[in-house]
Amino acid sequence: MKKDIIAVYPGSFDPLTNAHLDIISRAAKLFSVLIVAVAENPNKKHLFSMSERVSMIESSANIANVKVTFFTGLLADFFVSVQADVLIRGLRAVSDFEYEFQMALMNRNLNAKIETIFLMPDQAYTFLSSSMLKEIAMLGADIKDFVPHCVEEKLKEISISKK
Amino acid sequence: MKKDIIAVYPGSFDPLTNAHLDIISRAAKLFSVLIVAVAENPNKKHLFSMSERVSMIESSANIANVKVTFFTGLLADFFVSVQADVLIRGLRAVSDFEYEFQMALMNRNLNAKIETIFLMPDQAYTFLSSSMLKEIAMLGADIKDFVPHCVEEKLKEISISKK
Amino acid sequence: MKKDIIAVYPGSFDPLTNAHLDIISRAAKLFSVLIVAVAENPNKKHLFSMSERVSMIESSANIANVKVTFFTGLLADFFVSVQADVLIRGLRAVSDFEYEFQMALMNRNLNAKIETIFLMPDQAYTFLSSSMLKEIAMLGADIKDFVPHCVEEKLKEISISKK
Amino acid sequence: MKKDIIAVYPGSFDPLTNAHLDIISRAAKLFSVLIVAVAENPNKKHLFSMSERVSMIESSANIANVKVTFFTGLLADFFVSVQADVLIRGLRAVSDFEYEFQMALMNRNLNAKIETIFLMPDQAYTFLSSSMLKEIAMLGADIKDFVPHCVEEKLKEISISKK
Amino acid sequence: MKKDIIAVYPGSFDPLTNAHLDIISRAAKLFSVLIVAVAENPNKKHLFSMSERVSMIESSANIANVKVTFFTGLLADFFVSVQADVLIRGLRAVSDFEYEFQMALMNRNLNAKIETIFLMPDQAYTFLSSSMLKEIAMLGADIKDFVPHCVEEKLKEISISKK
Amino acid sequence: MKKDIIAVYPGSFDPLTNAHLDIISRAAKLFSVLIVAVAENPNKKHLFSMSERVSMIESSANIANVKVTFFTGLLADFFVSVQADVLIRGLRAVSDFEYEFQMALMNRNLNAKIETIFLMPDQAYTFLSSSMLKEIAMLGADIKDFVPHCVEEKLKEISISKK
Repeated sequence: MKKDIIAVYPGSFDPLTNAHLDIISRAAKLFSVLIVAVAENPNKKHLFSMSERVSMIESSANIANVKVTFFTGLLADFFVSVQADVLIRGLRAVSDFEYEFQMALMNRNLNAKIETIFLMPDQAYTFLSSSMLKEIAMLGADIKDFVPHCVEEKLKEISISKK
Repeated sequence: MKKDIIAVYPGSFDPLTNAHLDIISRAAKLFSVLIVAVAENPNKKHLFSMSERVSMIESSANIANVKVTFFTGLLADFFVSVQADVLIRGLRAVSDFEYEFQMALMNRNLNAKIETIFLMPDQAYTFLSSSMLKEIAMLGADIKDFVPHCVEEKLKEISISKK
Repeated sequence: MKKDIIAVYPGSFDPLTNAHLDIISRAAKLFSVLIVAVAENPNKKHLFSMSERVSMIESSANIANVKVTFFTGLLADFFVSVQADVLIRGLRAVSDFEYEFQMALMNRNLNAKIETIFLMPDQAYTFLSSSMLKEIAMLGADIKDFVPHCVEEKLKEISISKK
Repeated sequence: MKKDIIAVYPGSFDPLTNAHLDIISRAAKLFSVLIVAVAENPNKKHLFSMSERVSMIESSANIANVKVTFFTGLLADFFVSVQADVLIRGLRAVSDFEYEFQMALMNRNLNAKIETIFLMPDQAYTFLSSSMLKEIAMLGADIKDFVPHCVEEKLKEISISKK
Repeated sequence: MKKDIIAVYPGSFDPLTNAHLDIISRAAKLFSVLIVAVAENPNKKHLFSMSERVSMIESSANIANVKVTFFTGLLADFFVSVQADVLIRGLRAVSDFEYEFQMALMNRNLNAKIETIFLMPDQAYTFLSSSMLKEIAMLGADIKDFVPHCVEEKLKEISISKK
Repeated sequence: MKKDIIAVYPGSFDPLTNAHLDIISRAAKLFSVLIVAVAENPNKKHLFSMSERVSMIESSANIANVKVTFFTGLLADFFVSVQADVLIRGLRAVSDFEYEFQMALMNRNLNAKIETIFLMPDQAYTFLSSSMLKEIAMLGADIKDFVPHCVEEKLKEISISKK
């Protein structure tokens, strides 16, 4: 009984890091379709525009059953609109866990069919978050081990333009 | 591209609780085959024998793509022997999380192909663990809301025989 | 020896949720007087005005020994000014706990007589915070299970006016 | 409207520490009656007998509205039998919190009327647990700052007799 | 074999608290040179200017082997530029720990030679953070037990000027 | 002003793992003398004898300024007897942290001069504890990546003899 399960991996991806890529690669092996869904939240300030964030993922995560898209509004509504079966989240540490658990419960309360599963990125990425990455990139850190090449280039441009 | 993914849900199940059943039901919807694997660890004392633990699950989790079995030795070896793709664990709270994270990393170190995913049981089972259940059952608590009927009966027998 | 204990339940209540109401109802049963004290902090941005926040609580928490008021300045000073005996806080999860513990210790250091006690809301509200609520309400979520009716109406108005 | 609230503070008290005494003193100020309830669990090994544990509390916590007793069986049943209104627990740190939260939810599930509240002991006792105390006492530590005098004497006797 | 170890204690110190002073005093006893390094991050808003933050530390931490300086850019680069051997961080509680652990791993990834060690401030400062201190000072709290005298004076001036 | 600081790294080391070795190597670089102190606690069951545990460390941690010894009784007393200045502990994760923090506070209460510092092992050892290692070794796991060669041999012998 083969299953045709559609998974959604939502996030800001501002920008995509190697930890995100690692989760994408792991989830793509487990499910038939993986939709990487970039959240557009007009109340949050992003470093990269929506189209930049989507195209950075598209050029880095070149996997057959991975689709990249964006959504506005409620994640719970997007989940239903793409007929998804499961929501993917990465877990690095306890601080992640608390927030992620709260989100997953909220989503389940909004729609009992939203099943959230948590994957663990490679141990090497325990320390890696988009916010910390942006902070050190703006301070001139060499970030080539933490992000795909296209993200590194984009961050360098911004870092130089700010000087 | 439908996927044929084999999932393993290992544990002591000493005894099975409704929280376990909830995880089994959720995982069975996501994967083609779910193997509930009861761990036989000669160094641990169990309240129920291996055959009792297996049969309690078999009679409670009557789902087409769920198989119940037991294993001795290393979980990482059992995982390979059944050609599994993913390991299932339930997550209730932070104390769980720390231990589960450590186990998942250890298993990944033993075999890089062991992908662990975490599912969240129903909010109603946040407080429920096999050890706390046994403790209150031995003290005479009414546990019918926390375990399947066959487990309730077994626990009552033991509780009475100890008096 | 009956006791006449005055309890204070401080917060931003921006806005009141069912989790807050649940704590109010539990605390009102334990103490003679419960003062729900809405904090006015000029350094924080609130979605609702002070008078809106106070009146949402007044119309939702209609309990004989519950009084609703607001305070500016230091909670420790307000506590003394109303001759309170105990401070009430709700606890949901670890992230709450750390912050709440730090606050309770700070208040005890400011005034050794400030005794903080923590109550646990109903399990159903584990996921519920005012900030997450506002976020999903602004994105169009149906929030009627999470807040009193008057709060739901107010949030809808704001959500529509922002479109 | 003065309230006549009966509080229960359960525990093993094996032995009583200054952290326990601190919680007893704080709770006695808030409620009309405080019942310190020593748990007799035949499945657990205790250093001190039930009567020793009860009498150590009686001679140390000499407060008018504090009663000391013991119970066997389920705490939820004892709570009902003494017509208690609230359960008292001390909270020191995160590891405490997780366990205590789980217990409080379990008790609420066994009986919805069991309201658990958490108090914070003096900052000076953050590190103090009965198990760690016994361990260092057996190794010859000077423990007079951590326990009442009668407990210190008892622990010394045992420590010497073991040599 | 005596060692000549250079330690760096970085932070915002906006403003210096007694908890910081406590860590400085402890670290100065363990290492030959302790460089207190005030971070200038143009992306963060500070209450006090860089020169104010440096001079508050200089006048409060009058210890022979302690030097106070500031740095811009990446901490990992500053660490190398002063030929430091070890990075000092204070740890108060779990929330601290998670963030500090992430930072320490990031720094080790940027430069494998950056060894971070964690010290524990006096128990009395468990609750003390610069952000909470600023908040209560602006609300008129008496903060003389939490900061050196010169910081208390500076905070009073600001608090009055804002009224 | 070079400093002659004596550090003590206490533990059960039952058995030594690569995570311990990593901490030993890091601490030896920071302090003049590092005393690895194996705790003999007659109330705990150990897999390896004291002399085995000491000799496994001696043959694996061959560093000039590292001494290996054992102690009975209270760590606080041993610390004084060797005129130590600082206590070393490794930190891997939150569960570690809570216990270690409690221990460090207890030791500081027993003797205010006991300064505990925490070091972080290599990220690769986040998952590694002696107890989990023993468990998987007894189940037949290949542990050569987790322990020094001499420990691997010893564990194999025991594992085989138990069959």
